[in-house]
Amino acid sequence: MVIVMNPKATQADIERVVARIEKAGLKTHLSTGEECTIVGVIGDKKKIAGLEMNVMPGVDKTLRITEKYKLVSRNFQAEDTIIDVDGVKIGGKHFAVMAGPCAVESIEQLNEAARAVKKAGAQFLRGGAFKPRTSPYDFQGLHEEGLKLLRDAADREGLKVVTEVVDHDDIELIEKYADILQVGARNMHNFELLKALGHAHKPVMLKRGLSATITEWLNAAEYIMSGGNTNVIFCERGIRTYETYTRNTLDLSAVAIIKELSHLPIVVDPSHGTGKRSLVAPMSKAAVAAGADGLIIEVHPHPEVALSDGDQSLTPEDFETLMGDIKGLTKFVGKVL
Amino acid sequence: MVIVMNPKATQADIERVVARIEKAGLKTHLSTGEECTIVGVIGDKKKIAGLEMNVMPGVDKTLRITEKYKLVSRNFQAEDTIIDVDGVKIGGKHFAVMAGPCAVESIEQLNEAARAVKKAGAQFLRGGAFKPRTSPYDFQGLHEEGLKLLRDAADREGLKVVTEVVDHDDIELIEKYADILQVGARNMHNFELLKALGHAHKPVMLKRGLSATITEWLNAAEYIMSGGNTNVIFCERGIRTYETYTRNTLDLSAVAIIKELSHLPIVVDPSHGTGKRSLVAPMSKAAVAAGADGLIIEVHPHPEVALSDGDQSLTPEDFETLMGDIKGLTKFVGKVL
Amino acid sequence: MVIVMNPKATQADIERVVARIEKAGLKTHLSTGEECTIVGVIGDKKKIAGLEMNVMPGVDKTLRITEKYKLVSRNFQAEDTIIDVDGVKIGGKHFAVMAGPCAVESIEQLNEAARAVKKAGAQFLRGGAFKPRTSPYDFQGLHEEGLKLLRDAADREGLKVVTEVVDHDDIELIEKYADILQVGARNMHNFELLKALGHAHKPVMLKRGLSATITEWLNAAEYIMSGGNTNVIFCERGIRTYETYTRNTLDLSAVAIIKELSHLPIVVDPSHGTGKRSLVAPMSKAAVAAGADGLIIEVHPHPEVALSDGDQSLTPEDFETLMGDIKGLTKFVGKVL
Amino acid sequence: MVIVMNPKATQADIERVVARIEKAGLKTHLSTGEECTIVGVIGDKKKIAGLEMNVMPGVDKTLRITEKYKLVSRNFQAEDTIIDVDGVKIGGKHFAVMAGPCAVESIEQLNEAARAVKKAGAQFLRGGAFKPRTSPYDFQGLHEEGLKLLRDAADREGLKVVTEVVDHDDIELIEKYADILQVGARNMHNFELLKALGHAHKPVMLKRGLSATITEWLNAAEYIMSGGNTNVIFCERGIRTYETYTRNTLDLSAVAIIKELSHLPIVVDPSHGTGKRSLVAPMSKAAVAAGADGLIIEVHPHPEVALSDGDQSLTPEDFETLMGDIKGLTKFVGKVL
Repeated sequence: MVIVMNPKATQADIERVVARIEKAGLKTHLSTGEECTIVGVIGDKKKIAGLEMNVMPGVDKTLRITEKYKLVSRNFQAEDTIIDVDGVKIGGKHFAVMAGPCAVESIEQLNEAARAVKKAGAQFLRGGAFKPRTSPYDFQGLHEEGLKLLRDAADREGLKVVTEVVDHDDIELIEKYADILQVGARNMHNFELLKALGHAHKPVMLKRGLSATITEWLNAAEYIMSGGNTNVIFCERGIRTYETYTRNTLDLSAVAIIKELSHLPIVVDPSHGTGKRSLVAPMSKAAVAAGADGLIIEVHPHPEVALSDGDQSLTPEDFETLMGDIKGLTKFVGKVL
Repeated sequence: MVIVMNPKATQADIERVVARIEKAGLKTHLSTGEECTIVGVIGDKKKIAGLEMNVMPGVDKTLRITEKYKLVSRNFQAEDTIIDVDGVKIGGKHFAVMAGPCAVESIEQLNEAARAVKKAGAQFLRGGAFKPRTSPYDFQGLHEEGLKLLRDAADREGLKVVTEVVDHDDIELIEKYADILQVGARNMHNFELLKALGHAHKPVMLKRGLSATITEWLNAAEYIMSGGNTNVIFCERGIRTYETYTRNTLDLSAVAIIKELSHLPIVVDPSHGTGKRSLVAPMSKAAVAAGADGLIIEVHPHPEVALSDGDQSLTPEDFETLMGDIKGLTKFVGKVL
Repeated sequence: MVIVMNPKATQADIERVVARIEKAGLKTHLSTGEECTIVGVIGDKKKIAGLEMNVMPGVDKTLRITEKYKLVSRNFQAEDTIIDVDGVKIGGKHFAVMAGPCAVESIEQLNEAARAVKKAGAQFLRGGAFKPRTSPYDFQGLHEEGLKLLRDAADREGLKVVTEVVDHDDIELIEKYADILQVGARNMHNFELLKALGHAHKPVMLKRGLSATITEWLNAAEYIMSGGNTNVIFCERGIRTYETYTRNTLDLSAVAIIKELSHLPIVVDPSHGTGKRSLVAPMSKAAVAAGADGLIIEVHPHPEVALSDGDQSLTPEDFETLMGDIKGLTKFVGKVL
Repeated sequence: MVIVMNPKATQADIERVVARIEKAGLKTHLSTGEECTIVGVIGDKKKIAGLEMNVMPGVDKTLRITEKYKLVSRNFQAEDTIIDVDGVKIGGKHFAVMAGPCAVESIEQLNEAARAVKKAGAQFLRGGAFKPRTSPYDFQGLHEEGLKLLRDAADREGLKVVTEVVDHDDIELIEKYADILQVGARNMHNFELLKALGHAHKPVMLKRGLSATITEWLNAAEYIMSGGNTNVIFCERGIRTYETYTRNTLDLSAVAIIKELSHLPIVVDPSHGTGKRSLVAPMSKAAVAAGADGLIIEVHPHPEVALSDGDQSLTPEDFETLMGDIKGLTKFVGKVL
């Protein structure tokens, strides 16, 4: 931490600041400039985190130098984490595609969707059985019945299952049916859920919060990893900005940033990231070019009757066309799909 | 709902749209303009909510006309809800002040804080026993021990207790000690928590999410009310914007908007809303002038050693000065404090 | 400036950084922590501003310590600037109200508006003769004809005139008719206009840009002051955020912040700041309570036929009622209106 | 336009609304729903634009159906505009790369940069001679001297010149030296500049404003086209969001959206869009995959001594490597570079 003293700080102010830091068992370095004095704090990161120096007389501001996350950091582990989902790999050179409807609605819908996404080349079937919805009057999902449909449809086609968990009480149940547990954007800051997932036995796909910074997102993953579950996959799904033409603003720079700062894989959700079917294909390709490790795409056999997110769902035909392009592009950039 | 057809939509496109709406048991009205045709949908709001018309051929966009929340709406109940917390009222003419430390740290800290906020004229003691923190390595609260300290300190001074609940499993425990259950900004979209609070026996103070729209916030309150708990208090605590000078951007227009759209009371948190001690007083006064029903303010006997949020905590002396101004101002605007 | 070296920076990296700084005629202070080394840079602010250290090997990030603006700063001038507009004062204890239509439309409209705002107690007539509009097909203003109408209507009622300048070529013309020159939000970063206004002979009211930070806004004022025109008034008019319920998010904390950082006065525009008539009165009162030095409010004799911004314009009756409240409140907070 | 009446609107309210619309020479269609009545307005778009219906009694809200821009629209011209800059084409299948330093600093810097970008395969030399800077004390550019250096360096290498114009008074001068006139993000809403560029003789590259919506951006281009200059190129350069890790949030979905809504070409600026050198390459590739028509990239022979934007400038070596990838990728997606 660096403490910038006010130009009007007195010598006594500076001495009090130094005394307080040293009392906490830390060391200081003073830089006396023409305009102000700067106090560098040296020592144990945890002790430094506890200091609230901004409130002391004469302090203008404090600047944090190092981040608090550790296990998720590329500094902690240099090589890419490759997550092995029962034979299907994500990370490093391995590119994965997850596809399916927003919500599990019926056996017919799901079987049709599973067949279509398998045929086009996806490895995972996605679909929500527990749906977090803005209004209490909207469809909330089929719950365990939905999980069973997901598992059955996936097994029939040789797909893996990724589905959302919205409450820690459901983890055990969902682990019986799913291969990857998804944390939705609205729950990225649900720390009780994150802590519980730290003890889960399946990989976790952690969506970025609606307005989460990169640092908050990395710390959310640190909650899971520090609990013992090292299989975390980031998912960029767009952030909330002033622009309303798209449902969210897909931040593809996050792909490259996560790759720099962390060893964990990152997939992109262009469906929620844009909210518009016509933008899913170009953003999927852009995600591959930006270095993503996978895609999660909404595909619905009949988008016009979908109970949610019909606007952004691809038809099976659209998806098959897109997968043709994605296969070419992943190969071009040296990934294995 | 209003459906705007594309200028290039064919007559067949329009007929398919109309047929689909009528098949759902709804009626249509067509307006044929010079540039495009508009289809108005008439009938049961719930049936309309299920339509996904955007995906049909020829449809340019759909516009929602009515909101989904009902119980929280001023249309549903015209007169202000006044919440009676064991004799202390919030709403209508009744102004309430909640104050205390960010986190419960020790018996000394809490007793000193309780004494100070009571002396200055607050009715509620605030303090977190369960803390949602960005990093897993930050102080997470004293849990039940903290709740006991809160209750004891409040009882000794004749104050009520408001404290945060971060997990539905804790509701029963916290209800034993607290008078108002607070939902933090990071949990405004934790729908499982909201549903559980719909069955709680104590009033709920619902903070606005980091980037929640007014409509999402009202819907979150609808989750609680539709579960049966009608005692909901909104709390504006700043939203996330591009501006980094303040911790958040305090949106005081939300006070006036909530007053228009809902009958529920709204309090303002200028401490989190600005993140800077020097801004707490002016924003508190502005909140009163904007029509708020209360304030929740961080006060710490020794901000410079606070385990969290020291930067934005008032000292007891600052708080007492502010309360003098607030008392005058609430009286001036016709409120009872 | 403080330079944070990467944990993996070598001794040679550090030495190169130090050498480069010292070559620029500046001094350094090293703090060697457990995780990384920090290099403090000491010396002439202008020399430091020119350093681009981020690009050197081993540098993790650089942190700016001091801001570039000077003349606008409260550190440069401790006492409040009071601007005297031909006898009407703004700043310090002096509160000013500016009111009138968004655009000058006709002699009848303007005379009716001028009469109404004068009667209610405003000191300035506002109205746009040069209108910056999003679409080239929208009404662009009456230009010099509009300026004449403004001056005539204001003179008849004993009001001062504030009006927008959108181009430096118009400054001389507008100065003939107006008492305060307004820079609109869309031109806050039009540096050529700001430079030209540095040589103008009338006070400048500088609206905050749509997404301008406090620092950028202060620097924009510095452009004007550094040209020699020291009569600058800030105007908070709302910033662009994700919230669409209001036209903008009125940031009243900016009032208190500007008061801390600068000696210049600040007025608030609740009309553009909210875009909704019903929110103008509560936000006007909140602005007074937050410490504003004035208000600028849209008043139109017949909002329902206004050529622009009818939604947010008050009727003369609404405005008169509001002014009653504002007079009471300014007196209560110790200001002179 | 669609007018939604309040559920409590009276029959008289509705009749007044209808009467006012019909008096303006427009037609109405009424849809009477269970909750509210909707009034569709039919007729001349310009007449409708002038209606301010929101302020009439009983009106809840009005919804705009059609946009105001026309000439820039894909509805107006279905085929891609291909801009021919003296033999170098942009748009359709033609991909263009513009590269060079942020600011023109010296003859040596520019010649070295020009040589490097030509060698790597760029067609345009970029460089600012007129620099819009946040602080009046920052380097403002070499002006005409800088333009001459640009032209000379470009001619020597067989490159075209793109450079920024910050004031309409400079257009004539800059046209003498440049092949494309750039409007910077801070001037996207400088309507006087846009109008003047409508009469310019060179193509205009219009950067997206810091917080401009897609619609505002299209309207800004409409200002130029409606003046007679049909050679407009959009440039996505990142938008301002809450995320501070990057300088801006590069919105690549804008590429696909502009391609849908407009026939004009769009290039991407990953340098300003991210502000970090390490993100320029992945975002450049993502832009190509998203369908961009070109790239504008900051390249500086010695970023560590750049007078501005050194952090985000590539070295000639980095740029050459990136161009290798870009050449492969453009070919892969069927573009000609």
